[in-house]
Amino acid sequence: MTTQLTHPTRSVDKVEANILASIRKSGPLSRAELGDLLGYSRANVTAVLNHLLALNILEERELGESQGGRRPRMYGINGSLGYVVGVDMGATSLDLALADLNGNILERVSEPCDVREEPEILLNRVAELIEEMLGARNGRSEQLLAIGIGVPGPVKFDEGVLVAPPLMPAWESFPIKTFMRQQFTAANVAIDNDVNVMAMGETCAGAGKGIDNFIFLKIGTGIGAGIICHGEIYRGQDGAAGDVGHICIDYNGPVCHCGNVGCLEAMAAGPAIAARGLEAVQSGSSDMLAEALAANEGIMTAKIVGDAAKAGDLAANEIVKSSGRMVGGMLAGLVNFFNPQMILIGGSVSHIGIRYLSAIRQAVLRRSTALSTRHLRIEFSPLGKDAGVIGAIWLALDHVFTIEN
Amino acid sequence: MTTQLTHPTRSVDKVEANILASIRKSGPLSRAELGDLLGYSRANVTAVLNHLLALNILEERELGESQGGRRPRMYGINGSLGYVVGVDMGATSLDLALADLNGNILERVSEPCDVREEPEILLNRVAELIEEMLGARNGRSEQLLAIGIGVPGPVKFDEGVLVAPPLMPAWESFPIKTFMRQQFTAANVAIDNDVNVMAMGETCAGAGKGIDNFIFLKIGTGIGAGIICHGEIYRGQDGAAGDVGHICIDYNGPVCHCGNVGCLEAMAAGPAIAARGLEAVQSGSSDMLAEALAANEGIMTAKIVGDAAKAGDLAANEIVKSSGRMVGGMLAGLVNFFNPQMILIGGSVSHIGIRYLSAIRQAVLRRSTALSTRHLRIEFSPLGKDAGVIGAIWLALDHVFTIEN
Repeated sequence: MTTQLTHPTRSVDKVEANILASIRKSGPLSRAELGDLLGYSRANVTAVLNHLLALNILEERELGESQGGRRPRMYGINGSLGYVVGVDMGATSLDLALADLNGNILERVSEPCDVREEPEILLNRVAELIEEMLGARNGRSEQLLAIGIGVPGPVKFDEGVLVAPPLMPAWESFPIKTFMRQQFTAANVAIDNDVNVMAMGETCAGAGKGIDNFIFLKIGTGIGAGIICHGEIYRGQDGAAGDVGHICIDYNGPVCHCGNVGCLEAMAAGPAIAARGLEAVQSGSSDMLAEALAANEGIMTAKIVGDAAKAGDLAANEIVKSSGRMVGGMLAGLVNFFNPQMILIGGSVSHIGIRYLSAIRQAVLRRSTALSTRHLRIEFSPLGKDAGVIGAIWLALDHVFTIEN
Repeated sequence: MTTQLTHPTRSVDKVEANILASIRKSGPLSRAELGDLLGYSRANVTAVLNHLLALNILEERELGESQGGRRPRMYGINGSLGYVVGVDMGATSLDLALADLNGNILERVSEPCDVREEPEILLNRVAELIEEMLGARNGRSEQLLAIGIGVPGPVKFDEGVLVAPPLMPAWESFPIKTFMRQQFTAANVAIDNDVNVMAMGETCAGAGKGIDNFIFLKIGTGIGAGIICHGEIYRGQDGAAGDVGHICIDYNGPVCHCGNVGCLEAMAAGPAIAARGLEAVQSGSSDMLAEALAANEGIMTAKIVGDAAKAGDLAANEIVKSSGRMVGGMLAGLVNFFNPQMILIGGSVSHIGIRYLSAIRQAVLRRSTALSTRHLRIEFSPLGKDAGVIGAIWLALDHVFTIEN
């Protein structure tokens, strides 16, 4: 990392970093609350607070609730110290948001893209959109302190590069951080897998707040999981953790594009649902699907099957439930292994209806041990399609400050 | 927790706790190394070191290697401040060790036990054995600062009680901590599941040193996993994490004692291996197994099958490899989800031979994604049957000091 690019007041030690992270997660806190939360001595907390106030990183806020004695002074992050940007890069769409240092979204922009393009072309467009958002706020590019980017592929997180990304081969090892820093010289840049970023969105600003261990499952064209473990994103040894679409659910199942047989993704993701919808038309078992297929120029989709299921079509319903059972069967194994507090279901296929969720739930409950499901909640992602861009903002917020070594 | 039981010098704040944990893991460290490792300012490290030296918790050691300038002063834990005990409670055996505060084992004792007995009876015997070991060192019971206990059942870790333990129903909710503290008034007591404790042994003193994310798989009468995640034991929401023996590997498989069908444990653990060995005798496909069965008074065991496989018996070999393939197939799913750096195989069944390990490895490599196996090692546990008692010592060492709140 080239130190001259780092804003001089943004290098903090670990105690300072922990105090900033606590305030970022919880909102404004008092001296006593910080001491209790982190287990630091009062002297340590006071010294750090004074230092961060002097640096203008923290600011005094209104007085908090009395805990019996005088109302305590609260300390919050100085949101106007600069900006952060979150970028959710999908296979076919770009979603960006500009936020202050408290994570309040100030500007948003979305447009179609093709992630198969050369990285320079796409990242130059990202930079233009960032400049537009900054311009709308009369901000300058050197006021941008961090950029968080979610990408649809496996990431070596420390290096910020993609590794063997199937959807975007031109990006293999491309130095995204360095490229973005040429234009935004004050910005720290963090890149992570899109599902990890969605899980981060839920953990920082959604249903995952205060939940230490949960799984975010994205079901769309593919199937992948973001894992929150001990309150943090868990990426695994090679950044490959959460690749649950290729867990085998049937040793005699169909061949997957990965070369193995019976992968969950090959049997239960969007294309598999569409393929089974087409089979139902061809076998004559659903007039409703046949009509919908004709109305959609002969192209079957998971959404068509879901809509038919919602409208009461028996064949479509069975397809939806069957996919849910397969997803739930896989999840049951993960529940036995990981004993999470919550599983959030997101991605485009999750919108095919409430019967899908109940089929998943039933399969998990039937196949997991009783103890591991005692407190388990399985829900749709409440942030939905915003989970990615919100998570990317929080990824950026996590990287505004550099920890001294 | 009753504070009068806690030795007054053993209450530390979080910065102090982190410094102690770093020295415990790494051995003696210099001021500069502690600052680098933890990201604390020099002033913070110096203040904490001076405080811990004054309390006699740390002690000055010999000078370390020069890093260019003067040789630095090293700081280590004062091992003679007191004792800790590790207890590995198996279904049929007790293993105990007494250690100093640096984890050096001073005394050991083992004897048979029956874990189905009332907890008071068994824990009184544990207390007697502890007193014997202390006596052999001329130690007093108030010098025992922490006890770590591994038990064969699910544990609510914070409370230190077993939850719905199938092997030891009389222990449900029994207050082990309080019971042990009656006799050892200065001791903090920590209880964890036996496989978690084995994983802890490997992470603190075995093949897991310096490895952030790995799985310890115990294969015996049952199958269970200990999970190290971000360098710490991962217990899950209900203390049920790692219950991988009940992951389904065959939706048309046999009924397991848990009530589900096709659980790994029902198909691949010790009793399943023995049952298949018996089938081989009954179908006349192995003379070697038939002879061994007769020599063992008609009782077939996994060990007999393993010995026959080692001696070249084809039927036994196929049973061993088949069990390995099933274990490996389940592990492949965990590798896709968790992307660990290492999997360690322990437990009594792991001793049935190297072909077992190679069958496991082959199945994992065949069924996991290429990226997630790039750096994966799958090995036998090097601590073997000592993993439990060594892990219990390190569990105790983790609880010598109480963190202030």
